[in-house]
Amino acid sequence: MHRLYHSPGACSLAVHIVLEEIGQPYEAEIRSARNGEGTTTADYLALNPKGRVPALTGVPGGSGGASDLLTEAVAILMFLARRNPEARLLPSDPAGEARCLEWLSWMSVDLHGIGYGQLWRPHRFVPDAALHEAVKTRGMENIRTAHDHIDHILSDGRDWAVPGRYTVVDAYLVVFWLWGRRIGLDMEAEWPNWGRLMRKVLERRAVKQALRQEGIA
Amino acid sequence: MHRLYHSPGACSLAVHIVLEEIGQPYEAEIRSARNGEGTTTADYLALNPKGRVPALTGVPGGSGGASDLLTEAVAILMFLARRNPEARLLPSDPAGEARCLEWLSWMSVDLHGIGYGQLWRPHRFVPDAALHEAVKTRGMENIRTAHDHIDHILSDGRDWAVPGRYTVVDAYLVVFWLWGRRIGLDMEAEWPNWGRLMRKVLERRAVKQALRQEGIA
Repeated sequence: MHRLYHSPGACSLAVHIVLEEIGQPYEAEIRSARNGEGTTTADYLALNPKGRVPALTGVPGGSGGASDLLTEAVAILMFLARRNPEARLLPSDPAGEARCLEWLSWMSVDLHGIGYGQLWRPHRFVPDAALHEAVKTRGMENIRTAHDHIDHILSDGRDWAVPGRYTVVDAYLVVFWLWGRRIGLDMEAEWPNWGRLMRKVLERRAVKQALRQEGIA
Repeated sequence: MHRLYHSPGACSLAVHIVLEEIGQPYEAEIRSARNGEGTTTADYLALNPKGRVPALTGVPGGSGGASDLLTEAVAILMFLARRNPEARLLPSDPAGEARCLEWLSWMSVDLHGIGYGQLWRPHRFVPDAALHEAVKTRGMENIRTAHDHIDHILSDGRDWAVPGRYTVVDAYLVVFWLWGRRIGLDMEAEWPNWGRLMRKVLERRAVKQALRQEGIA
């Protein structure tokens, strides 16, 4: 049985949703990423030296920590989807799968790593706290640019992020939709095509279940 | 036939290496990413609105540009490896494949997107040019931290980045090894386990061929 280490509302939420979609039993353990409270403790760092969530047990071949621990949201999402084909969380052809990874990889770098990195962890970019406001302001611009890109792709009326099927990409998009609301952006008004997709995704039983378990209204 | 859009020595080099490993005919077109010379022209932006390399034609389902264009190095590497199993560029089990993606995703965010992003594109992080030195200095620290992590994982004496087989991860590691040298780091002395792996990888026919074609000594 897999155990998911996650922090409520963090990008680990996408993995949580996917585990609910798959519907097999799993364990979940909260490790709050807020100020590293739960992710920088000695016991967690022994397990996962990166000190981050999500992390998933039950995957052989780990290094530098627990030998069965898989890290990186993108890798975990693709692993779970590929390992559980009956859940139909990926297109069935290699090109469609590549389109999913194209979305996931781009969001993990441009939106999460850079945009939200700047906004929430400006010290990663400049040590001097006096400069943090400038980094955060630029981060907000990068987030908006990424949102425009997402909305533009979705503006062709497609049914899901990768047309034809609900995939792990739609689950990952939930994370950034909620983050946008959390930082005060008027998501529905500014990015209506993304909003149209999210209304459908947020109605899914698995998504509601994961949100409820994480205490997200 | 695929056409690769690439810039000599950029992260597109990893895709170039993988195309050489596969050994099927392909076309390559240089689009210099240096100051965006070849990647921000009108004709290229019509093809690839992201204005980046690598990009690979011949993959259905594209959006926002050419309908058969795949972007994102991580997605292209995994696509080519999965589409050409006879080249044996991925482990044969889902867990091994997930380990590859764990490496690729982490490097694309922490080392490329953040570390080298700060060093080479500080304006992405703060607009004020007077602050760019601070961003670059912190970027160099992030690069060193990432190098330490790579060397630590490789310090257990494994044969390849993901044990048991040469994979797309080893090709991607070549990019960052050469970038480290380019920015003046004493790679062999500081990160000897990584160096041991690279000596083996740089001897491969496909790697030499891609480097020669890109004019890299």
